[in-house]
Amino acid sequence: MIRATAVRRAALFAVPAAALVMLGVAVPTVSGTTRGVVGSSASYQTAGDSLRGFSTASADRERALEALLAQRVNRDSTGAAFRVLTAEPHPAGSARNKVLADWVAEKYRAAGLEDVKLHRYDVYLPWPREVSVTMTAPTRYVATMKEDVVAADPDTKQDPGITYLGMTASGDVTGELVYASSGNPGDYDWLEAHGVSVKDKIVLVRYSVPYSYRGYKALVAQQRGAKALLIYSDPQEDGYRKGLTFPDGPYGPLSHIQRGSITYDFIVPGDPLTPGWASVDGAKRIPIAEARSAPTIMMAPISARDAAPLLEALTGPVAPASWQGALPFTYRVGAGPATVHVKIDMDGATRPIWVVEGRIKGSEEPDKYVVLGNHRDAWVFGGVDPSSGSATQLEMARVLGGLAKEGRRPRRSIVFASWDAEEWHLTGSTEWGEQFADDLRKNGIAYINVDGSTSGSNLQVGTVASLNHLVVETARDVTDPASGGSLLAAWGKSLAGEQAATIGGGASRTNAVRNTLDYPGNALGSGSDYTVFLNFLGLPVIEMSFGGPYGVYHSIYDDYYWMTHVGDPGFRYMATMADVWGRMALRLANADVYPFDFQLYASRVGGFIDAFARQTSNGRVALTAVRAAQRRWLTAGARLEAAQHAALAASPSAARTAALAAMNEALRQVEQQLLFVDGIPGRPWFKHALYAPKSTYAAMTLPGMREAADDKHWPLANAQALALAGRLDAAAAMVERAVAAAPR
Amino acid sequence: MIRATAVRRAALFAVPAAALVMLGVAVPTVSGTTRGVVGSSASYQTAGDSLRGFSTASADRERALEALLAQRVNRDSTGAAFRVLTAEPHPAGSARNKVLADWVAEKYRAAGLEDVKLHRYDVYLPWPREVSVTMTAPTRYVATMKEDVVAADPDTKQDPGITYLGMTASGDVTGELVYASSGNPGDYDWLEAHGVSVKDKIVLVRYSVPYSYRGYKALVAQQRGAKALLIYSDPQEDGYRKGLTFPDGPYGPLSHIQRGSITYDFIVPGDPLTPGWASVDGAKRIPIAEARSAPTIMMAPISARDAAPLLEALTGPVAPASWQGALPFTYRVGAGPATVHVKIDMDGATRPIWVVEGRIKGSEEPDKYVVLGNHRDAWVFGGVDPSSGSATQLEMARVLGGLAKEGRRPRRSIVFASWDAEEWHLTGSTEWGEQFADDLRKNGIAYINVDGSTSGSNLQVGTVASLNHLVVETARDVTDPASGGSLLAAWGKSLAGEQAATIGGGASRTNAVRNTLDYPGNALGSGSDYTVFLNFLGLPVIEMSFGGPYGVYHSIYDDYYWMTHVGDPGFRYMATMADVWGRMALRLANADVYPFDFQLYASRVGGFIDAFARQTSNGRVALTAVRAAQRRWLTAGARLEAAQHAALAASPSAARTAALAAMNEALRQVEQQLLFVDGIPGRPWFKHALYAPKSTYAAMTLPGMREAADDKHWPLANAQALALAGRLDAAAAMVERAVAAAPR
Repeated sequence: MIRATAVRRAALFAVPAAALVMLGVAVPTVSGTTRGVVGSSASYQTAGDSLRGFSTASADRERALEALLAQRVNRDSTGAAFRVLTAEPHPAGSARNKVLADWVAEKYRAAGLEDVKLHRYDVYLPWPREVSVTMTAPTRYVATMKEDVVAADPDTKQDPGITYLGMTASGDVTGELVYASSGNPGDYDWLEAHGVSVKDKIVLVRYSVPYSYRGYKALVAQQRGAKALLIYSDPQEDGYRKGLTFPDGPYGPLSHIQRGSITYDFIVPGDPLTPGWASVDGAKRIPIAEARSAPTIMMAPISARDAAPLLEALTGPVAPASWQGALPFTYRVGAGPATVHVKIDMDGATRPIWVVEGRIKGSEEPDKYVVLGNHRDAWVFGGVDPSSGSATQLEMARVLGGLAKEGRRPRRSIVFASWDAEEWHLTGSTEWGEQFADDLRKNGIAYINVDGSTSGSNLQVGTVASLNHLVVETARDVTDPASGGSLLAAWGKSLAGEQAATIGGGASRTNAVRNTLDYPGNALGSGSDYTVFLNFLGLPVIEMSFGGPYGVYHSIYDDYYWMTHVGDPGFRYMATMADVWGRMALRLANADVYPFDFQLYASRVGGFIDAFARQTSNGRVALTAVRAAQRRWLTAGARLEAAQHAALAASPSAARTAALAAMNEALRQVEQQLLFVDGIPGRPWFKHALYAPKSTYAAMTLPGMREAADDKHWPLANAQALALAGRLDAAAAMVERAVAAAPR
Repeated sequence: MIRATAVRRAALFAVPAAALVMLGVAVPTVSGTTRGVVGSSASYQTAGDSLRGFSTASADRERALEALLAQRVNRDSTGAAFRVLTAEPHPAGSARNKVLADWVAEKYRAAGLEDVKLHRYDVYLPWPREVSVTMTAPTRYVATMKEDVVAADPDTKQDPGITYLGMTASGDVTGELVYASSGNPGDYDWLEAHGVSVKDKIVLVRYSVPYSYRGYKALVAQQRGAKALLIYSDPQEDGYRKGLTFPDGPYGPLSHIQRGSITYDFIVPGDPLTPGWASVDGAKRIPIAEARSAPTIMMAPISARDAAPLLEALTGPVAPASWQGALPFTYRVGAGPATVHVKIDMDGATRPIWVVEGRIKGSEEPDKYVVLGNHRDAWVFGGVDPSSGSATQLEMARVLGGLAKEGRRPRRSIVFASWDAEEWHLTGSTEWGEQFADDLRKNGIAYINVDGSTSGSNLQVGTVASLNHLVVETARDVTDPASGGSLLAAWGKSLAGEQAATIGGGASRTNAVRNTLDYPGNALGSGSDYTVFLNFLGLPVIEMSFGGPYGVYHSIYDDYYWMTHVGDPGFRYMATMADVWGRMALRLANADVYPFDFQLYASRVGGFIDAFARQTSNGRVALTAVRAAQRRWLTAGARLEAAQHAALAASPSAARTAALAAMNEALRQVEQQLLFVDGIPGRPWFKHALYAPKSTYAAMTLPGMREAADDKHWPLANAQALALAGRLDAAAAMVERAVAAAPR
């Protein structure tokens, strides 16, 4: 999993609407006044106990089923699974991760899941033979590249292997060092303005706030002509300056190292050798030199402790205030006199990875299915990331499988997936999605991702806005373990606190998140396994976690001890996520009418268009057609509200059953209408018209016309606007088809 | 000298108008539209080469004289004096400071000054016999209380004596340690809310931003029941986190210690034993136990290096983000387990201090005089503080004295004063002002203070607004040594840069300081020797320096090496200040009409009233009379503009001479009209109706009614408003008298 910062992790993949307001992005309020909303605000209410998409009778059955789910979810069994999952390092390609794949398959089978199988993909997955970083002048210092053993935590005695970044280039270079803060383009511009070139230099950057993805830093350094890039974790960001460090607190001690991959997977994710198709046996592979997602720069991660002597040895201009960190000296930028020798030798190998799949077959529409995915591979022990989510998923499978064995089978199927090599470039989910693309488009209902489920107690959800309603209703019905009250209320409190912290306190603006339907974020970027489902397949997606202070990400300290002493003692939230996730799956699988809300979705898109017009277009892009299509979609969405109410109230009959089936099939296909067949310009794999990740992994809305407008390529931006209008029109038409099909 | 922070030092004693705008304080623009300004904006122009208060013929003579001043001011002689002044530590009461007093007197005489004399005052000035700070648990650590010797700077090998804070209580105590951030009341409130009491504890605080005076921290700790207070300099504020440290840069190295006094001189300054009268031979002394300005708490200063082990040993709650500093660990607040033993033994002695006085007698009105003061005593070597100002003053005396010897004598007298024990509680200037109060009120024209003259190149001026015009015209005519252009232009650039830094960049608001008359600040607090002249005697005052990054304040590193390598290599700004200061003195001494501008002063006071009404009064204080009086003063000020123009254009005659004398005498007395005979409530020594220092040393305007309103004591606030109206009325009447007396 990829994250921004410990506490603001959610911002990466899903900015809550409240945060968008703070950023000046227009967010339509749920009373829906933006641009001609038809329909009353009453249709947005989530108060009471209604279950969207369920008739009264079905809702009663659903509630009884969910009560059993909540009752049976167990903290001890969740914790027992978590102990197995985190017992040893299990990176992608390792023997241990294959052992765990077999173990997960066994657990799936034991839970009663059907069609359990392992999918093997042979993917480009080079491991290191040697990684070394040595300062050769003005004094000699050999970076340890190792994290300290912590006496209280025996797991830290295990050997995590050579410390490296996935997809680094190999080489043996020496050069003067330059400090470039976050390594974003503006940082290099500052250096240049102060007479410091990074050409043929070794550049040292830090994991940073505001966040940018380490692979983006690699790309920028590559473009600027650096010889190699080093990255370290400044205690300002995730260490002692934030709070107590492991084992006393959640933050990273000085020796901790953030591993990760640096693939340019914002261009195309998955195996770099099979861009757009699955890495199955016999599939065509392109040469690595032709892979657009493969960096050509050497890059290595170091700890703050290893970075300190290098950074302290720099002279040259004093770095600006915002570049200073929490190490105890004045940061200067060089170049030199610090001179650094970096040697990296990667084996260039292809390795097998393993996706585990299993399903609970639906009783009435077994072909249709909801997919519930989590990855299994970890950089080391993977305490939060991903084993907390893996344990949550196994607990959920145990309970839902048990209910099915008892005959309490969902109406539609539920598919469980344990991905592999997510940590590289979302590899397993991407290959699986590419392999089964046709079936997923034909039968998939939605994808719900849980990467790490638990690093704290603050619910964080990103989703397409058609599912905000489902998310909020679910949170309303789940019990928050800390307060004993509704998770929705706890969520509201944590959002208000987060917002207060962000805007510097003061209660005056906390009412910006007063409406519960604004709690889920709707700006989807990338960084976990939902990407192939959203951007390549056009499935509605949800991405969730319980977040909290978390400074040990991708280090050896993200482990069992951290979780049981700091992150989630007693597995309270890890187990609660099984309840949340399971209920969502059941509601999607059992609803009479799929609970999609296109009025809110269209309204949000109206906000994206407004923001584009204000921030980017400057009047140079004609938005008439886009706005007309958005209004059409909004109007259709409002009509759907009424049609759905009528449909759910209709008396059972064969005609009603057939009409509901037709209505549902249209609803299921709406999201797919938002795909461009050929993708967005320059990135054919990314097909979604509303969302694509930026190279920094941040969310970008309306990416086709926005990237063209950012480049001031106005003819292309206008063409993209028309193409976007076409997709919104198609979505509107599909909603209209659902309305037309609805039983009356 | 007392300062806020290195770069924002000016804010302490004089907030520039631009900064007031940022703080939301209404600042009338110089076009004077606030509340019925009479007279045209043309009267506020400082463009062209006019000299306010001078007829054309007089201006020509003045300009010729100032050209000689500028020509003769010499960097080498300035630097030579600076070397003598900074050669050894010379705190108040030391033999060395007496040697320097004699040497300054000799320099005054050599320069041609007349009536040179030393004034002796015997004042309470206890020195330390022992000061020790020892952590006794959980490990033992003895604070070194010493600064490191720096090889490049031989002066640092000299013994600065025992490190201490002036006016600390004596005692021998041991207690658990609590960290209380800045030691302001809100900080203790936070501790209390988190279950941490400081009662009978040893409290550790830091010199901090936002600034509060160390004596204020002492008072708060005393009130909260702490056993003793330790204060240290966090590298976040004045050390490596700000930039390069001595000897590589202007900031303080880890071992530097900020000395200073902690007297409650915001209640009454000067010798605590003679509050309100001079400590001359035979004067009455009160017992120290009855002195309101004497702290009863023990307090000691330590370096960041000595603070680190103590702070790191604390457990308890993690301190909030704004309490974290730049030391390399997470700050927690305790209490304990760190336990600290503090022993302080002060000798309780009275010691002699020495004020040196000399004058250039005026040729036409020798009884009337301008006072130019600077203190001589230093905590150690006193590089910036105060020896840069002492060297500037001696250079100015040399040149002005030389001109007088040649017969180029000013029309009115110029008095030079070298104060002593400023570092304690503005002692020398206060005693001298109290001793000669009658004569100063009868004959004093204005007081211009230069404490440290130079820590950089950014002009910083605080003044009563009647002298803004003089200050700006002077800056216009002085050459900035760095740019070779006008100092006024350089000043504008430095203010724009400071403002941009303060408001987070962006050129859009820099035009808030577009009018040069807004450059001088008009919010006068305390912290240097102008206090007795403004607050006790009612003289118009100016306080000036060239500022810059300065992290070695009150440490041994504030010395010759710092100045010649970092602060002002080549003595360019130290010498330039002699030009600035000398011109101001000459203009006040030679003007046909005193160059006071009461239209601007009254306009600024209108702003103070608006701010009070908005921020404090809430309608509970009747301001009708105050506003009426302010308008009367403003109107009179506008009429004065016209009367002055007519007076200066009148043909010479005996009648004109007599009329000018009467007009000038009225103008000279306007500021004195602003004094309350009995002072402000609770602080009888502070008599000025418009200004008093807060206990933090920050400026407070309209202090009588503001303090009462802050206490919600509405009857008193209303009574104070009426008293204020009386003072403004008296000032208006005195301006009207000047207008009536003016030659026509």
